Amino acid sequence: MPTRNDGRTADELRPVMFQRGFAANAPGSVLVSAGNTVVLCTASVSDDVPPWMAGKGKGWVTAEYNMLPGSTSPRKPRDRKKVDGRTTEIQRLIGRSLRAVVDQQRLGERMVTVDCDVLKADGGTRTASITGAYVALYDALLSCEDLSPEGTWPLVDSVAAVSAGVVGGRVLLDLDYSEDSAAEVDMNVVMTGSGKFIEVQGTGEGGTFTGEELQGLLRAAEAGIQQLTEKQQQSLNGA
Amino acid sequence: MPTRNDGRTADELRPVMFQRGFAANAPGSVLVSAGNTVVLCTASVSDDVPPWMAGKGKGWVTAEYNMLPGSTSPRKPRDRKKVDGRTTEIQRLIGRSLRAVVDQQRLGERMVTVDCDVLKADGGTRTASITGAYVALYDALLSCEDLSPEGTWPLVDSVAAVSAGVVGGRVLLDLDYSEDSAAEVDMNVVMTGSGKFIEVQGTGEGGTFTGEELQGLLRAAEAGIQQLTEKQQQSLNGA
Amino acid sequence: MPTRNDGRTADELRPVMFQRGFAANAPGSVLVSAGNTVVLCTASVSDDVPPWMAGKGKGWVTAEYNMLPGSTSPRKPRDRKKVDGRTTEIQRLIGRSLRAVVDQQRLGERMVTVDCDVLKADGGTRTASITGAYVALYDALLSCEDLSPEGTWPLVDSVAAVSAGVVGGRVLLDLDYSEDSAAEVDMNVVMTGSGKFIEVQGTGEGGTFTGEELQGLLRAAEAGIQQLTEKQQQSLNGA
Amino acid sequence: MPTRNDGRTADELRPVMFQRGFAANAPGSVLVSAGNTVVLCTASVSDDVPPWMAGKGKGWVTAEYNMLPGSTSPRKPRDRKKVDGRTTEIQRLIGRSLRAVVDQQRLGERMVTVDCDVLKADGGTRTASITGAYVALYDALLSCEDLSPEGTWPLVDSVAAVSAGVVGGRVLLDLDYSEDSAAEVDMNVVMTGSGKFIEVQGTGEGGTFTGEELQGLLRAAEAGIQQLTEKQQQSLNGA
Amino acid sequence: MPTRNDGRTADELRPVMFQRGFAANAPGSVLVSAGNTVVLCTASVSDDVPPWMAGKGKGWVTAEYNMLPGSTSPRKPRDRKKVDGRTTEIQRLIGRSLRAVVDQQRLGERMVTVDCDVLKADGGTRTASITGAYVALYDALLSCEDLSPEGTWPLVDSVAAVSAGVVGGRVLLDLDYSEDSAAEVDMNVVMTGSGKFIEVQGTGEGGTFTGEELQGLLRAAEAGIQQLTEKQQQSLNGA
Amino acid sequence: MPTRNDGRTADELRPVMFQRGFAANAPGSVLVSAGNTVVLCTASVSDDVPPWMAGKGKGWVTAEYNMLPGSTSPRKPRDRKKVDGRTTEIQRLIGRSLRAVVDQQRLGERMVTVDCDVLKADGGTRTASITGAYVALYDALLSCEDLSPEGTWPLVDSVAAVSAGVVGGRVLLDLDYSEDSAAEVDMNVVMTGSGKFIEVQGTGEGGTFTGEELQGLLRAAEAGIQQLTEKQQQSLNGA
Repeated sequence: MPTRNDGRTADELRPVMFQRGFAANAPGSVLVSAGNTVVLCTASVSDDVPPWMAGKGKGWVTAEYNMLPGSTSPRKPRDRKKVDGRTTEIQRLIGRSLRAVVDQQRLGERMVTVDCDVLKADGGTRTASITGAYVALYDALLSCEDLSPEGTWPLVDSVAAVSAGVVGGRVLLDLDYSEDSAAEVDMNVVMTGSGKFIEVQGTGEGGTFTGEELQGLLRAAEAGIQQLTEKQQQSLNGA
Repeated sequence: MPTRNDGRTADELRPVMFQRGFAANAPGSVLVSAGNTVVLCTASVSDDVPPWMAGKGKGWVTAEYNMLPGSTSPRKPRDRKKVDGRTTEIQRLIGRSLRAVVDQQRLGERMVTVDCDVLKADGGTRTASITGAYVALYDALLSCEDLSPEGTWPLVDSVAAVSAGVVGGRVLLDLDYSEDSAAEVDMNVVMTGSGKFIEVQGTGEGGTFTGEELQGLLRAAEAGIQQLTEKQQQSLNGA
Repeated sequence: MPTRNDGRTADELRPVMFQRGFAANAPGSVLVSAGNTVVLCTASVSDDVPPWMAGKGKGWVTAEYNMLPGSTSPRKPRDRKKVDGRTTEIQRLIGRSLRAVVDQQRLGERMVTVDCDVLKADGGTRTASITGAYVALYDALLSCEDLSPEGTWPLVDSVAAVSAGVVGGRVLLDLDYSEDSAAEVDMNVVMTGSGKFIEVQGTGEGGTFTGEELQGLLRAAEAGIQQLTEKQQQSLNGA
Repeated sequence: MPTRNDGRTADELRPVMFQRGFAANAPGSVLVSAGNTVVLCTASVSDDVPPWMAGKGKGWVTAEYNMLPGSTSPRKPRDRKKVDGRTTEIQRLIGRSLRAVVDQQRLGERMVTVDCDVLKADGGTRTASITGAYVALYDALLSCEDLSPEGTWPLVDSVAAVSAGVVGGRVLLDLDYSEDSAAEVDMNVVMTGSGKFIEVQGTGEGGTFTGEELQGLLRAAEAGIQQLTEKQQQSLNGA
Repeated sequence: MPTRNDGRTADELRPVMFQRGFAANAPGSVLVSAGNTVVLCTASVSDDVPPWMAGKGKGWVTAEYNMLPGSTSPRKPRDRKKVDGRTTEIQRLIGRSLRAVVDQQRLGERMVTVDCDVLKADGGTRTASITGAYVALYDALLSCEDLSPEGTWPLVDSVAAVSAGVVGGRVLLDLDYSEDSAAEVDMNVVMTGSGKFIEVQGTGEGGTFTGEELQGLLRAAEAGIQQLTEKQQQSLNGA
Repeated sequence: MPTRNDGRTADELRPVMFQRGFAANAPGSVLVSAGNTVVLCTASVSDDVPPWMAGKGKGWVTAEYNMLPGSTSPRKPRDRKKVDGRTTEIQRLIGRSLRAVVDQQRLGERMVTVDCDVLKADGGTRTASITGAYVALYDALLSCEDLSPEGTWPLVDSVAAVSAGVVGGRVLLDLDYSEDSAAEVDMNVVMTGSGKFIEVQGTGEGGTFTGEELQGLLRAAEAGIQQLTEKQQQSLNGA
């Protein structure tokens, strides 16, 4: 059985690391890396909830995603006039994923914005963003005086994400850029630490996939997310 | 076992109809309805492929999606300054879905744009758009002199889409607006007439779902798409 | 005396039809056709008047105009970044025309937005829009519980519009696209059912016209609008 | 018979003046005033025709209209993000009016842009713009070495414009701002020096007008334009 | 020692003139010229201060800068979609310069907007704008009933500006366009009438400058601004 | 003599560090910090020069500047619709500063874009950006096969920048955010390693400054830049 470019087996994650408290003024600031993909996730807290939520005693979590120009080669021009479609899809996905593990009532009337800025892109930037954003969100909530894991705590579960794909007919976990470019099917899965699904997105761009392949992708992703969840807990316990 | 608002069983589609050649100057023009959801799908053909495709002898299919202001009550303001995130996601999905059944080489250096304008919205507008867009695309290709189903024909399969969701703990097929608003999980599935998957998008906004629920949603959608495929064929055979 | 492309005499309207209650969720929804020109007019009612009118006990009527991409061949790109000059002119004209027959005091502090979306374009889209918008506005007002033609009713007259032009030296009524493209002078006239003028716009793009031609155009338009007014009444009486 | 605010009779123009060669680097630069309305009209010539005209040996004339912030009190904010509907309508009207007296073939493959910037606004800015723009266009064409009134000359006629309106039931010529604000009907007429019509725009905002009133407005405007034409000729002869 | 294009010595200003009360409806309206550079400065007063200042009893002065299309040859396209970087820099500079001589408390809760529209550009448009804007601001404040130079007066000093540059190794004062284009170093200096600095901006685009050159530029500018201050006073005394 | 918040003397720089090769795919990638201000400078190289430079055998260097949302507290919203005035000013300054030390001929027909993304802001972000951008530019040029410091090398000097200001009447070097907010005068100076000036920008927002203060600021900045130049050389020698 052939190994992958970087020597990984088909169901092996790239090395993942979390650097909490990385240079930023935001209360949550995590530099997350998955192999050569590096994302800075910062979480900021404010008292302003969106107008349609005001006065309900509930909070909101939203996210923004952005690739820095130097994160790719050739350079990626900035989204300065409009936000492109891919960016919009990704930041909506990150926001939904985080909200799925937040109890809005316990959060109280505050707004958390999690910014995921990709410093270095090598595939899987949206899933690394979600996995890192959870840790940044955790740290930002720790900074709120009235919240604590021992007392009132808005996080009801953890959340992590990973990609899987069919490349050359094989199901592979956690695709890097070269694998992603060659994939017949690309799937992103977001799950909670307790094993529930939040989001499943499987796409056959320029191709289709069978029910059997779909099941193989789901199994691989599920196993990968269990490992990411452990890494998150280790990082948070190290604080 | 309780029936649904409109008396349907859990695995029953809404009535679907295709009105080919509906008022428009585009070569493909189909008014598709699924219950109270009504979408005008028009397909236009031009010789201009996108710049990055020019000179390769291959064609491209793209899609735009839009809700008319009167399609909802209260009125939905027009996207006149910018295209919102939801619209962008949907039109990218429609485009990918159609391209999955198109042989770009056989299409030749031409561009087909399929416009899906929602006249009346009652849930499932994106899936009705895909299902109708396939018929409009078919008609537009029929209008090209060098293409025919008996000769060179770029469509290698048909494509249709449907939603499914978990509402009040039950898996329901083809959600209308009231069901969609109450759904814990919302899934959209795009498949070919031959039973292959093109896209699976399952989302738990403000909630999560188990592996078992995921499998139930996939089974319901698969059965629904088989019926939609038959309706498409009947409509096209009636020409 | 030569007849026109479609066999009409110089002073003959194209066949006009109104389909009230056409697929839409707006309270007023009329599919109007004038020959091969087809426009969907939907009228929506809301309690929000523009800020500069608030608290005066008066209402406002405004309009938006748009051509669907498939309404022309080749396809017309959407106005997604900005609204082009022609569109702006037309929707301002439709709004002014409707307001001329509305008693703002009797309307009460509410806002009616009439959307005119052109499904199929063959000349005269702005005049068909006005003629259809009146019927949609009527239906939307009927849906307001405190208003009725027998009681308080904001419509003080009806309104309809038609084009006329000088083509090959002849004054023709209700130009289709091929005639419009060849016209030396193009005039749009908006009048009330009682025979008063609301708007007269005569333009000699790349040409000029004499006082005599101006009078001929006015006479033709006046006669055409009388017939359109009758058609509107028949449609409304049929409800 | 009551006189007007400024003592004019009903059919009297405001004093009109043209200051040719006013401070600007453009080849045509005319400061035109009609009473307290003051417009700077500059005409610039370039070799770049619009893409759709290139290679046909014909030229194009276009116009832009703008009100400086200090031209009104209170200050009018600049159109820095988008051009509003009124501005678009006016600059299209100015462009059409100028093109009606230009022989595009004789103009040759060049583009003239006439900018009308309102320095002081007191009603009738669009008609003053047209009347002044003609003089600026004349001067810009004089600056082209291959064109001259004695040799090849693209201007086949002159063009001027004036407003008329029904105010308090009376037909008045050349409305100032206070009259314009009170007018039941507002009409703008553009004519050539030889007495042909280019544009007739009569609008009853919030009102209607009879056929008799329409005829009265046309007669007043026609007489006014004859006088403006003489003023233009005197200014051009004075060069 | 060689003289300059227009015969000036190295430390000589261009002729400067102020035409107060020039055609505009704004309370301050000054046509300022410095040689062939001509700018219309209008100052408007309103009661609306920016939201972040409201309720503090203090006022604000802001500025906008714009070049009319005919001010240059070839024509300068309008900033209708976005404001370019140079424009933004200049209008921020003008605003800061004016605010440096305004006592915001004495101004009271009002907003003055000074618009600098360049009619003819021959170098030094930003410095002429500042010099003229001060006079327009003075006149606008005179129009406020509760303010007067003898009573409460918000202006604590006057302000004027001039450019200097190194051209062909020589320090020159008040560069015209041809000198500016050839300059190795370009400096703009804003000072008060009492000899204090407000802004010093020296730039070596594509070049560098020595400390000695820097000192020479500062001395030349200082002398020039003394003369401009006198011209401003003479103009204001002439009222 | 009172020391500063962080114990520095009036003429003392904050600690400065350069981390070359920091996570990014761009050939030049430097994380520069000056005290608590942290900027990621990435330099990308492409063959596309701006259209107005093409075919001249010369290259161009440009810069973009951006503050990440988490770099400040409260969070700074992204520039997603338009680039604000401050950003535009800063990125133009960075570009000019770099070009002043680049020989465009030796650079050859290539374009270098230096992106300065602020991760943590504590005053002096523009000057830290310039100082770090030089190092990133150096590394990006090293990556070009035909360029080397021993052979053809486009950098004719080094460039660094620092701020100085008058705070509470004292001249201070390298202001942090709290000092910057309290400064009466703020000056930014850009100089080459060989002691020539590139840019001097001194601003008295809401205040003025004397000639003596101006000279003190220039002396302080000059001494600071000498130290920064040494730090840059040490970092580059360490490669």
